[in-house]
Amino acid sequence: MTHVAFLGLGDIGALMARRVAAAGLDLAVWNRTPARAERFMAALPDRSRVRVAGGPADAVRGADVVISCVSTSSDVVDILGPEHGVAAALSKGTVWVDCTSGDPPTCRLLAAQLAAIGVSFVDAPVSGGTAGAEQGTLTVMCGGDAAVLERVRPVLATFGSKIVHCGPVGAGDAVKAVNNALLAAALWAAGEGLAALRKAGVAPDVALDVINASSGRSNATMNLIPQRVVTRAFPRTFRLALLDKDVAIAAAFAREQHVPSPMLQLAAEMMRLAHATLGDAADHVEAIKVIEQWSHVEIA
Amino acid sequence: MTHVAFLGLGDIGALMARRVAAAGLDLAVWNRTPARAERFMAALPDRSRVRVAGGPADAVRGADVVISCVSTSSDVVDILGPEHGVAAALSKGTVWVDCTSGDPPTCRLLAAQLAAIGVSFVDAPVSGGTAGAEQGTLTVMCGGDAAVLERVRPVLATFGSKIVHCGPVGAGDAVKAVNNALLAAALWAAGEGLAALRKAGVAPDVALDVINASSGRSNATMNLIPQRVVTRAFPRTFRLALLDKDVAIAAAFAREQHVPSPMLQLAAEMMRLAHATLGDAADHVEAIKVIEQWSHVEIA
Amino acid sequence: MTHVAFLGLGDIGALMARRVAAAGLDLAVWNRTPARAERFMAALPDRSRVRVAGGPADAVRGADVVISCVSTSSDVVDILGPEHGVAAALSKGTVWVDCTSGDPPTCRLLAAQLAAIGVSFVDAPVSGGTAGAEQGTLTVMCGGDAAVLERVRPVLATFGSKIVHCGPVGAGDAVKAVNNALLAAALWAAGEGLAALRKAGVAPDVALDVINASSGRSNATMNLIPQRVVTRAFPRTFRLALLDKDVAIAAAFAREQHVPSPMLQLAAEMMRLAHATLGDAADHVEAIKVIEQWSHVEIA
Amino acid sequence: MTHVAFLGLGDIGALMARRVAAAGLDLAVWNRTPARAERFMAALPDRSRVRVAGGPADAVRGADVVISCVSTSSDVVDILGPEHGVAAALSKGTVWVDCTSGDPPTCRLLAAQLAAIGVSFVDAPVSGGTAGAEQGTLTVMCGGDAAVLERVRPVLATFGSKIVHCGPVGAGDAVKAVNNALLAAALWAAGEGLAALRKAGVAPDVALDVINASSGRSNATMNLIPQRVVTRAFPRTFRLALLDKDVAIAAAFAREQHVPSPMLQLAAEMMRLAHATLGDAADHVEAIKVIEQWSHVEIA
Repeated sequence: MTHVAFLGLGDIGALMARRVAAAGLDLAVWNRTPARAERFMAALPDRSRVRVAGGPADAVRGADVVISCVSTSSDVVDILGPEHGVAAALSKGTVWVDCTSGDPPTCRLLAAQLAAIGVSFVDAPVSGGTAGAEQGTLTVMCGGDAAVLERVRPVLATFGSKIVHCGPVGAGDAVKAVNNALLAAALWAAGEGLAALRKAGVAPDVALDVINASSGRSNATMNLIPQRVVTRAFPRTFRLALLDKDVAIAAAFAREQHVPSPMLQLAAEMMRLAHATLGDAADHVEAIKVIEQWSHVEIA
Repeated sequence: MTHVAFLGLGDIGALMARRVAAAGLDLAVWNRTPARAERFMAALPDRSRVRVAGGPADAVRGADVVISCVSTSSDVVDILGPEHGVAAALSKGTVWVDCTSGDPPTCRLLAAQLAAIGVSFVDAPVSGGTAGAEQGTLTVMCGGDAAVLERVRPVLATFGSKIVHCGPVGAGDAVKAVNNALLAAALWAAGEGLAALRKAGVAPDVALDVINASSGRSNATMNLIPQRVVTRAFPRTFRLALLDKDVAIAAAFAREQHVPSPMLQLAAEMMRLAHATLGDAADHVEAIKVIEQWSHVEIA
Repeated sequence: MTHVAFLGLGDIGALMARRVAAAGLDLAVWNRTPARAERFMAALPDRSRVRVAGGPADAVRGADVVISCVSTSSDVVDILGPEHGVAAALSKGTVWVDCTSGDPPTCRLLAAQLAAIGVSFVDAPVSGGTAGAEQGTLTVMCGGDAAVLERVRPVLATFGSKIVHCGPVGAGDAVKAVNNALLAAALWAAGEGLAALRKAGVAPDVALDVINASSGRSNATMNLIPQRVVTRAFPRTFRLALLDKDVAIAAAFAREQHVPSPMLQLAAEMMRLAHATLGDAADHVEAIKVIEQWSHVEIA
Repeated sequence: MTHVAFLGLGDIGALMARRVAAAGLDLAVWNRTPARAERFMAALPDRSRVRVAGGPADAVRGADVVISCVSTSSDVVDILGPEHGVAAALSKGTVWVDCTSGDPPTCRLLAAQLAAIGVSFVDAPVSGGTAGAEQGTLTVMCGGDAAVLERVRPVLATFGSKIVHCGPVGAGDAVKAVNNALLAAALWAAGEGLAALRKAGVAPDVALDVINASSGRSNATMNLIPQRVVTRAFPRTFRLALLDKDVAIAAAFAREQHVPSPMLQLAAEMMRLAHATLGDAADHVEAIKVIEQWSHVEIA
């Protein structure tokens, strides 16, 4: 019987943990703010195999699989800090699956630190949003030893339908970060182009109709911009602050790999200045509003 | 009965003119290099309503619709230069449809010059490649007066299946240029990201599998890179020299519209340096080879 | 005896024209807003050889040398538009010296248009500001035929102490635009660096002390930033709107010359967005305020 | 009597250590490649107070001041790795002065690691080149506690004439990196501009004459380009590989400080691709050759 510890019950994490519980696995949950853990428990239909741990060490004690799902790799480092006693509570042979959208260098440090005490590490960030987490259809991008991944695959399968072994430790985070950087680049470039076209008298839906039948199409032009920008709906589904963080990870990763990457670096800067301009609450698609302000035009 | 003059029988132009002829319209063709016009004639199944003109003025004389399909807007300016006598040969009421992938400011000058002699101008660049031209399924992006476009729509329909009125004169060229700039940005950004992933031990097909199921996907990641880069096939279907030209048009257009556009400008510079590095014969997707050279890695 | 026509009495132009008058040359002045011409006359100590012309054609009639000093090359094109009758009023052999900070392609068109009526063209933008104009110590960057420049050099020497033949028509404008683009790039890069240092606890004057003794120094770090930014004085001596225009000219010029130039292009975009953010009245050094806003810090 | 340990006898380091010895201080030197230490000794006029240590632990034993001067902060981390026993050999109260051109985050880790064993840390990269090191006129940019700096100032004064306290730990490295990034940006921007001017018929010395009398001047235009590029001398005084490293540090530093910094990021990418193109032996000024290759022109 697999015992799972789940650390971090944010918007996505709570839904993932709920699916782990629904699969009938033994589960100990912990969240820095205890109220979220209480709320998580209160919403469960069956609490018989689930407990709220008093701290991260209490959560991981006796666990076969630890899943962390926090904001940044630094938060995982903090959980493993000596003051929490997590290292001492971990059993040899445990697998630590980090579903945080983290950064590869810190992942490698975490993996080395855990390896020294006989714990394996897999970075496993997810994509698919709250809908995917709820329905168990997340994509899980995994970095680490392939054999270790096989051991935890049944646990990941409770919330993910596409579980991909990307490469060594850090590869999962790298793939997720690059994906998000490509989104940022395509979104921003499309915003620039559509703003210029709008000022020249070309309606965005006409331009998008052509582009989406042609070679310049992307997820940004096919989905995000028509559904969220042209309609002025701008729903808040994924925060710009998080995209900023992810694109910065991709940009630093490209540097670390010695790949000259002016486009990814510029995308990171645009997200950074948009985040600084629009604040922490803004959705990632709202970044386009910065281009609109600069250009004195609305893409609508 | 519509009389059509077709100026410029390049790879795409010849296929378009062939469809005009096949529709049974009266057709006069001209090409700067006469051999191409002879070859065009030789390949026609029915030459009864088609003639090779001795020069551009001879071609346009008596035409209701003039179609130009040359390399740049400057080439159209040259055709209308006083030494060719084209202006004098044009009839009032004629519509000049420019299928060149041109630039908006020169289009506006051409339109003004032609308006002064009673000729209407529509910029109408196409997308869809040689396959689309052959099958008559091109997308035609039109700029100019909507009523004028309606008059020539039946002629455009001989080679295009999606004929879109984008806006005033220059709007067709602007939309095409922006589309191609979005392609260039997405292609280059993906090249940077995949090169870094490859160096970190992530196979391109694995990365693309994830990206194409996620938010960073684009025509570049879904089609061009898997089919042409990962396979190392790099077929030559659309020259980098032409993409360089188009992205430079988009970049200048964004400036002209006073839209701060660092991403489009950078895309233009990357195409320019790739073009300078790889030469005139290279295909547009080969631009990625420059990133590979810089990074000492192959995306394969 | 040299007859000079001076078109455009802006802040710099009026001071230059005043020095032409002080040198005792015959002078006809014109300004689009007549009030400025009246004010110019009222301030002259000796008006005996100076007249206010009723229009540009009236000004240039009988002139050996025409000096234009307006905002953009387009303004010169407008002055030469058929409605003003300037072309007919010009004498063969006249030299048109354009002190506008113009753009090379339009200069070449102007030169061709004037050559057709026997008038020579020299582009001759100036640097040195109002102080240099007042004291006759401007730098004058000249493009055009060297022999033609020699003929007008005595006139230019009334306001310029460094008169440089840069190359063919357009070369003067190109050098000025590139100079200003280098200023923009150095200023902006220094703003980024000093903002980051300030946030890390390094005082700007300490950082500048080191940089100005080292390899990263520039006019921006040695003069503009210590005197205007660190002091928060931000005097309005040269408008950001004009620097934006000039850097855009340099960026377009680099493209026209087929030089991949990501840095100049980016500098142009930064000036454009700063101009859009801060408005038309802002001084060029205020561009740094945009970086400060993004970074939530003051370089002081 | 101050005992100094000097770790790292590279081109600059050996000259600095030589001045420490010449000042009559007790000195233990160590270099990873022992031959360099032997050569250092052989060249000393007076070896009476100098010894070659058998390893870094041997060198630092009994030292009041440790000076490290290696390639990267990682090299310092390696020296402090448990296998060398350096930590155990250090005395409480020792000051570790790191003259490496390092990166601020690693400096902070080093400072924390040393603080735990009672050793103070000062980052103190230098500028001024081999000439400055030989003559004792280096600029030393210091980060750390001001009082600690005062204690070691007499030692630093043996090789530096301008010793500046920049701010907390990491500030010295940050200032040096930013200085070098401003150099890189100015050099590259000037290269782009001069290449375009050259293609348009403007000789570089003419353009530089104007720019250096005007607002766009920088150390690059006043010294490096006229002396090294226009002459085609390209002496190898400071490797592009090192400038690449430094600008990357500045770019990462600006990100860490949450300063949107597209220009510094782009400068870092240009250095990276130039380094990748020209190899490890190239001088930093040779970066301009990449622009020349792209543009098919020589700035000469």
